[in-house]
Amino acid sequence: MSTTTPNGRSDVTVIGLGLMGSALARAFLRAGHRTTVWNRSPAKARPLVTEGAVLAGSARDAVAASPLLVVCVRDPDAVREVLEPVAGELAGRALANLTSGSSEQARALAGWTAGHGADYLDGAIMMTPPGIGAPDTLILYGGPRGAFDVHEPVLRALGGATTHLATDPAVPSLYDSALLGLMWSSLTGFLHALALVGTEGVTATEFLPFATGWLRAVGSFMPGIAQQVDAGAYPGEEATLETQLPPARHLVHESELRGVDATLPRFTRDLIERAVDRGHAGDSYARLIEQLRAP
Amino acid sequence: MSTTTPNGRSDVTVIGLGLMGSALARAFLRAGHRTTVWNRSPAKARPLVTEGAVLAGSARDAVAASPLLVVCVRDPDAVREVLEPVAGELAGRALANLTSGSSEQARALAGWTAGHGADYLDGAIMMTPPGIGAPDTLILYGGPRGAFDVHEPVLRALGGATTHLATDPAVPSLYDSALLGLMWSSLTGFLHALALVGTEGVTATEFLPFATGWLRAVGSFMPGIAQQVDAGAYPGEEATLETQLPPARHLVHESELRGVDATLPRFTRDLIERAVDRGHAGDSYARLIEQLRAP
Repeated sequence: MSTTTPNGRSDVTVIGLGLMGSALARAFLRAGHRTTVWNRSPAKARPLVTEGAVLAGSARDAVAASPLLVVCVRDPDAVREVLEPVAGELAGRALANLTSGSSEQARALAGWTAGHGADYLDGAIMMTPPGIGAPDTLILYGGPRGAFDVHEPVLRALGGATTHLATDPAVPSLYDSALLGLMWSSLTGFLHALALVGTEGVTATEFLPFATGWLRAVGSFMPGIAQQVDAGAYPGEEATLETQLPPARHLVHESELRGVDATLPRFTRDLIERAVDRGHAGDSYARLIEQLRAP
Repeated sequence: MSTTTPNGRSDVTVIGLGLMGSALARAFLRAGHRTTVWNRSPAKARPLVTEGAVLAGSARDAVAASPLLVVCVRDPDAVREVLEPVAGELAGRALANLTSGSSEQARALAGWTAGHGADYLDGAIMMTPPGIGAPDTLILYGGPRGAFDVHEPVLRALGGATTHLATDPAVPSLYDSALLGLMWSSLTGFLHALALVGTEGVTATEFLPFATGWLRAVGSFMPGIAQQVDAGAYPGEEATLETQLPPARHLVHESELRGVDATLPRFTRDLIERAVDRGHAGDSYARLIEQLRAP
């Protein structure tokens, strides 16, 4: 197993070789990029070296090896722990941090990195490790546009839907959180629906085609909702909050009656009730964003 | 305006001419079915009569006019209020009740209708009035299969995706509630995401393509979840609850920090935390159904 790193001879260095980091390194290798790898416990590098990666002998060598550093470790604190001792090597390079973290942490790391003369790109990977490198894999970046443009040809190996969102490095984490929130609430809604119909012996497999077809319909409502949210006007047309209140109450009642957790249905009912009480009975569901913004 | 009802001369009678009832009557007319209509306040019938409907002179005449009665009124109590005085006319007919209500109310109405010698079909319309009659409009029925088969050719005029779910008349209301719950939780998740990214000046229109693409990905996870739910085994593979806990906590934190309602994110985080605490760290999100079933 090679541990020499010809200084500056790699296209990209991947620091952190957990499930995701290893998938990132592998995608770079598959795309033909010379790839240096490093991990605190070097055993994880072994399979990647077999596939053509160069294992750096130290964190310093890892940083020195490439103009582009891709970091994917446990959390933003671990990014600092790894890079702090070798910060003197960062100047003139770009750090693409693909570690999950909050938008505040992204801003703090961007400031720290800039202080060492390096460009900082914050990236949010909207995919699990097996999907890394696929043509439709979405990876969202924030940071200086120029640095993104320089490194985008290499970064694109990680996902065909590599996208620069904003110069603000906080934006990708925020999109990440927002999209995960959409995923969790949709999936919890799905599980709640399965629990409910399950009380009458309906299997998940039986209910599935109705749920997937219905979710497509729900997706088709989103453009209209987005338009209303941007306009700040929410005409109800054929689906007013008033008409949705009785079925929202039924959902609470059915859940309670059948011993299924009613937290989510109660939250929906309360949002609708409050909007109706405040005089928005004729508005659409999009109106509820105003309550989410000012809880 | 004609008010004569040639007894037994219609294919179908529509009782209740609100927005939805009128859309139902119109779809029957468009499909070429002889249609009798009735509403407590007859003014609402006027446009339909212009389009070829026959206005019944009384609720009794309305019931007597057709072998198939389609009722769509305010709520299940209103169904009883309209039909109770003319219950003697029900024998030998089929009542397709498309009024929104709970599964208990559907069962009660089914019992009452059977007691008067009529077949009862409970229907749930998964569409707003403008979509009635469209080829992909989903209408779910429960009740005797034989009665459904007899009247299905006429009922199909209301929606191309007319489906018999079960002989139990309670099942369509339950599907209705479950699907609406899925819709509300997905849309609330979407509005929450918009509120969150909106704090950084991202418009709903900018965020929309990410949300709709992401919702398609979420839909693609559902078959795997359904399979795990039916198997009662939830291997986490590449997306364990443990790996989802830190981002779930970030979502709560981002929401609180930005003054966005954190009820939904906290509910998600608490569900995941509880599952991890109970030893299911390596399981998938599907495991959470067990907590929804036993809150």
